[in-house]
Amino acid sequence: MNDETILLAHGSGSRLSHELIEKNFLPPLDNPLLAKLDDSAVFDLIGRLAFTTDSYVVNPIFFPGGDIGKLAICGTVNDLAMSGAKPLYLSLSFIIEEGLTLSELTKIVKSIKAAAEEAEVKIVTGDTKVVNRGGADKLFINTSGIGIIPDGIDISGANAIVGDKIILSGTIGDHGIAVMSQREGLKFSVPVQSDCAPLNKLVSQMLEASSQIHCLRDPTRGGLATTLNEFARQSNVGIRVEETKIPVHDGVRAACELLGFDPLYVANEGKLIAIVAPHDAEKVLTKMKRNHYGTDASIIGEVTNEHKGKVVMKTRLGASRIVDMLSGELLPRIC
Amino acid sequence: MNDETILLAHGSGSRLSHELIEKNFLPPLDNPLLAKLDDSAVFDLIGRLAFTTDSYVVNPIFFPGGDIGKLAICGTVNDLAMSGAKPLYLSLSFIIEEGLTLSELTKIVKSIKAAAEEAEVKIVTGDTKVVNRGGADKLFINTSGIGIIPDGIDISGANAIVGDKIILSGTIGDHGIAVMSQREGLKFSVPVQSDCAPLNKLVSQMLEASSQIHCLRDPTRGGLATTLNEFARQSNVGIRVEETKIPVHDGVRAACELLGFDPLYVANEGKLIAIVAPHDAEKVLTKMKRNHYGTDASIIGEVTNEHKGKVVMKTRLGASRIVDMLSGELLPRIC
Repeated sequence: MNDETILLAHGSGSRLSHELIEKNFLPPLDNPLLAKLDDSAVFDLIGRLAFTTDSYVVNPIFFPGGDIGKLAICGTVNDLAMSGAKPLYLSLSFIIEEGLTLSELTKIVKSIKAAAEEAEVKIVTGDTKVVNRGGADKLFINTSGIGIIPDGIDISGANAIVGDKIILSGTIGDHGIAVMSQREGLKFSVPVQSDCAPLNKLVSQMLEASSQIHCLRDPTRGGLATTLNEFARQSNVGIRVEETKIPVHDGVRAACELLGFDPLYVANEGKLIAIVAPHDAEKVLTKMKRNHYGTDASIIGEVTNEHKGKVVMKTRLGASRIVDMLSGELLPRIC
Repeated sequence: MNDETILLAHGSGSRLSHELIEKNFLPPLDNPLLAKLDDSAVFDLIGRLAFTTDSYVVNPIFFPGGDIGKLAICGTVNDLAMSGAKPLYLSLSFIIEEGLTLSELTKIVKSIKAAAEEAEVKIVTGDTKVVNRGGADKLFINTSGIGIIPDGIDISGANAIVGDKIILSGTIGDHGIAVMSQREGLKFSVPVQSDCAPLNKLVSQMLEASSQIHCLRDPTRGGLATTLNEFARQSNVGIRVEETKIPVHDGVRAACELLGFDPLYVANEGKLIAIVAPHDAEKVLTKMKRNHYGTDASIIGEVTNEHKGKVVMKTRLGASRIVDMLSGELLPRIC
C-alpha cells in the first residue's frame, strides 16, 4: 500500500479522481459543505469580508517543524488574520506531480487537517490536478480563504501614523533557515525548527486589547526588512527600529553568520508585525506575551516623520543604517 | 524588451516582485480593491455566497481559441455560475517557471483582463511564485472565486427529479480536441477551436426564464459522460440520452474517429448541462438559443426512475448502451 503512487488519471476527472477524493480527502477533512461535492461551496455570510490567496511551492515539502500542508493552511489563515478578519472558510487546490506516493500525500492531508482544526477553519471546496513527471516538483498547493472582519476594525499597511509603536511577535528567520538547512542537508549544532503556525487567535486577542492597531502583517518572503519597507511606503512614513530589540534564536544567528545571510531578510511563517498607537502598545504587548505564539514579543521601534518611505535601524554598535527592501533572491521556494 | 524573462527573484517578495506586480499586473487588472496591495482584499457582501477554486495546468499554455489565462477566468466564473451564483470577485495566483518570457506573461495577463471584463468580474487579490527551471511547466494559474446566489435559487447535482429534461448548451469535445491538436502538432482538414467562454450571462438568462432549473454543471474534465454520471449518482436517478440529439462539430468528430476518442469523454470549457422541470424545458431552451453561447442548445434526454445511478444512451442505430464514467486518463493536462 505504501508504494501506491499518484497517476495522471487521478487528476482526469475520472473514476480514479473520484476515488482519491472520496477515500483520501473527504474522510479527514469532512464537513457538510465539502461533502456536497458541487462545483462551488455555498454558505450564508453577512458583513465585511476578507478574501486572500496563496500558492505554496516550498522545497522540500517536509521540513523541521512542518510540511507544505501545514504551511498552506497557516499562511492563508495568517493573511486573513492580518486584515483583522476571523478566518472561516478555505479552498484547497493540489497540483501533484505524477509519482508522488499516496503515503506522502496522506501525511500532508493529515497536517492540513490538524492545522485547520487548530485555526478553526473549514476546507469547503477543492481541486486536484496531476501533471506528468518533470512537469512539477512533487506537490504545489493553493489555498484561498474567506474571513469576516468585525465592525470597527480598519487595518491596512497604509494606516501607520507618526508616533505609533512597532511590535514584533517573536524571533525572526526560523522558517527560512529550517527549510534551507533541510534542503541543503546542513546540520547545525543548534537545530532550527520552522515557526509555521496559525496566528488568528493571537490576533483576535490583540484586537480585544486595543482598537488602535493600525497595521498588521506577517513577514514571510523578504522577511522583517521587506515588510517594514512595505509599511513605510504604503503609509508614507519613516520607520526606525533597534537591532538589539529584535529577537533571533542562537541557531538562526549561527546559520546566518556561516552562510552570509541577514536574518532581517529571512522568511517567517508564524510571526507578525503590528503597528499600534503608542498609548496602547504596552497593553497589546502584555496580551501577546500570554499567547503561546507571542511569548518573545517585543516593541522594536516606532513610526517617525523623518526619512519618509524608508526604514532605518539603530545597530548594536549605536550606528544608524538604512534597511532596504530585499533586492534580489535570497532563498528561493521558501513558501 | 521581448527577450526579458522571469527570474527566481520575481517571486521572492523582493523589489523585483514588487516591480512585476506594479508594472505588469496592476495596470491591466486595476481596481480599487486590488490596488490596496494588502494581504487580503476587503469588501462588503450580504447573502448566500458561492466559493470555488481551480488550478489550471493546461499544456500548451496557448491553444486555438484561448490560452491558460482565458481558461483560468472562464473556468472559475463557470463553476460559480453553475451554482446559480452571480460571479463577483476572483483571486489570481501564478506559479511561474523561471525562464518564461515576460512577453508571454503579458499576453496571458491581457487575456485575463479581456475574459474578466466580458464576465464582469474583478480580480481583487493575487500571488506570484517563481520556481526554478524544470520545477514546473511554464505556467500554472489558480483562480478562486466568490459569487452571490440570488434568493430562491437552489441548484445542486443532487436535485434531479424523475421526468426532468436534460439540456446541453452546444457541441461537445471542442476544447479537448483543440488543445490536443495544438500539443501534438496535428492538422485536421476542419480546424477545431476551443469553446472556452464565460457562461454566467447565459445562466442568468436561463434563471430568468425558469425557477425550476434543478442541476447545472459544465462538463470539463471527463466530458459530458462523466458529468451525467455524477448527476445520476448524486441524485440517485437514472439518466437517458439520445446520441442523435448531441451536437458534435465535424472537425471534432473526424479527429475523434482518427484518434479513437469518444467525444462524450472529451473536455469542454464553454458548455453546460442543465436539468430542468419538464414544463419549463422548452422555455429555457428558447432563451438559451438566443445567447451567443447557446445557439446549438438541445434537449438531449431525460431523468428516469430506471437504472438508478446510471446513464443509458440510445445510439444512432437504435440500440441502448450504458455510458460509464471515464475510468482512466484520456487527455492529460487539458485544463
